[in-house]
Amino acid sequence: MIQQNTRIDVATRGKGLYEITNKVERWLDSCGIKAGLLTVFIQHTSASLTIQENADRDVIADLNDFFGRIAPEDNRLYRHTIEGPDDMPAHIRSALTATQLSIPIVDSRMVLGTWQGLYVFEHRALAHQRHVVLHAIGE
Amino acid sequence: MIQQNTRIDVATRGKGLYEITNKVERWLDSCGIKAGLLTVFIQHTSASLTIQENADRDVIADLNDFFGRIAPEDNRLYRHTIEGPDDMPAHIRSALTATQLSIPIVDSRMVLGTWQGLYVFEHRALAHQRHVVLHAIGE
Amino acid sequence: MIQQNTRIDVATRGKGLYEITNKVERWLDSCGIKAGLLTVFIQHTSASLTIQENADRDVIADLNDFFGRIAPEDNRLYRHTIEGPDDMPAHIRSALTATQLSIPIVDSRMVLGTWQGLYVFEHRALAHQRHVVLHAIGE
Repeated sequence: MIQQNTRIDVATRGKGLYEITNKVERWLDSCGIKAGLLTVFIQHTSASLTIQENADRDVIADLNDFFGRIAPEDNRLYRHTIEGPDDMPAHIRSALTATQLSIPIVDSRMVLGTWQGLYVFEHRALAHQRHVVLHAIGE
Repeated sequence: MIQQNTRIDVATRGKGLYEITNKVERWLDSCGIKAGLLTVFIQHTSASLTIQENADRDVIADLNDFFGRIAPEDNRLYRHTIEGPDDMPAHIRSALTATQLSIPIVDSRMVLGTWQGLYVFEHRALAHQRHVVLHAIGE
Repeated sequence: MIQQNTRIDVATRGKGLYEITNKVERWLDSCGIKAGLLTVFIQHTSASLTIQENADRDVIADLNDFFGRIAPEDNRLYRHTIEGPDDMPAHIRSALTATQLSIPIVDSRMVLGTWQGLYVFEHRALAHQRHVVLHAIGE
């Protein structure tokens, strides 16, 4: 049994989903693990992870809109407003989605379904450099 | 340290929660792993996983209702409507719950609490065959 | 490759977030694992886990308020009311957050970001003793 880890940086340009499937696959290819478990962990509380449909871009746009409705930018709703009107909604959106995802590895690949893509979900209005830690264990 | 993986299929009959605890336990029994980590991964973006109360069926019904209210079937809210009024809500419901769950194994069993059951959460209106990948590592 | 597991108990005093980062770090220190994967699993369906900002206490209060708004205590909304008006909302809040979190271990530490803290999120109104299982694998 072996394990590997790395950190990848993801440049975001405001609220929305940024696909990282290929980036993660490329790293996994370099690990030489045929069967095992891959874990993706984002080191932030105002950006998160999600696995979503990778086919129709409208799904991604609708998803972003939904989170805008459920956690609106409205300072009257929050105590924590000093980092801007988008910051507290960003923490809520992060809590509602995933900070970590683990995906089994079979035949040297993540077992993502046909329509599944792996995304960083940026919840802040401005561009950020996001750090994502990858860990793989197996043989 | 050893590992095993498999795929189980879960037949659903429309929106709601379908318990898979026994199915997963039976597979785990066959693995011969006394201590370790079990990972459950669903290969879809319109059905998801959740660990919920396994005692009162009303909890399961109320949970399904809640997700119907929070992500209503209303085409005016979404761009992505070509797969039917239940499809975009299904993606949202999936994003709000889990695509993956990992559960420690102690004494050859998942350490589920007394009231915890493992469920596939179907978010589409029609019946589907859902694929769930299981991975166990340990010794 | 080695692995360890334990159970920690967390005393809560009603709805809100209770940080367990230090408790988990202390246990991890005792494991002697330099690189690997740590999994945190809560054995309940009316309390959950989340990774959130550890700096401004207002974030934590706002987060708790948000979940109060999204899943209100209102018996007219639910079938499952026999365990009190806070019980069904607690199950919903649990489904929306995490029952399990896995965090890579690098240089003998969880790779939490600077502002990330690990929390038990209590969703019931009264004090509870919550059980959290920890599992670490690595070398």
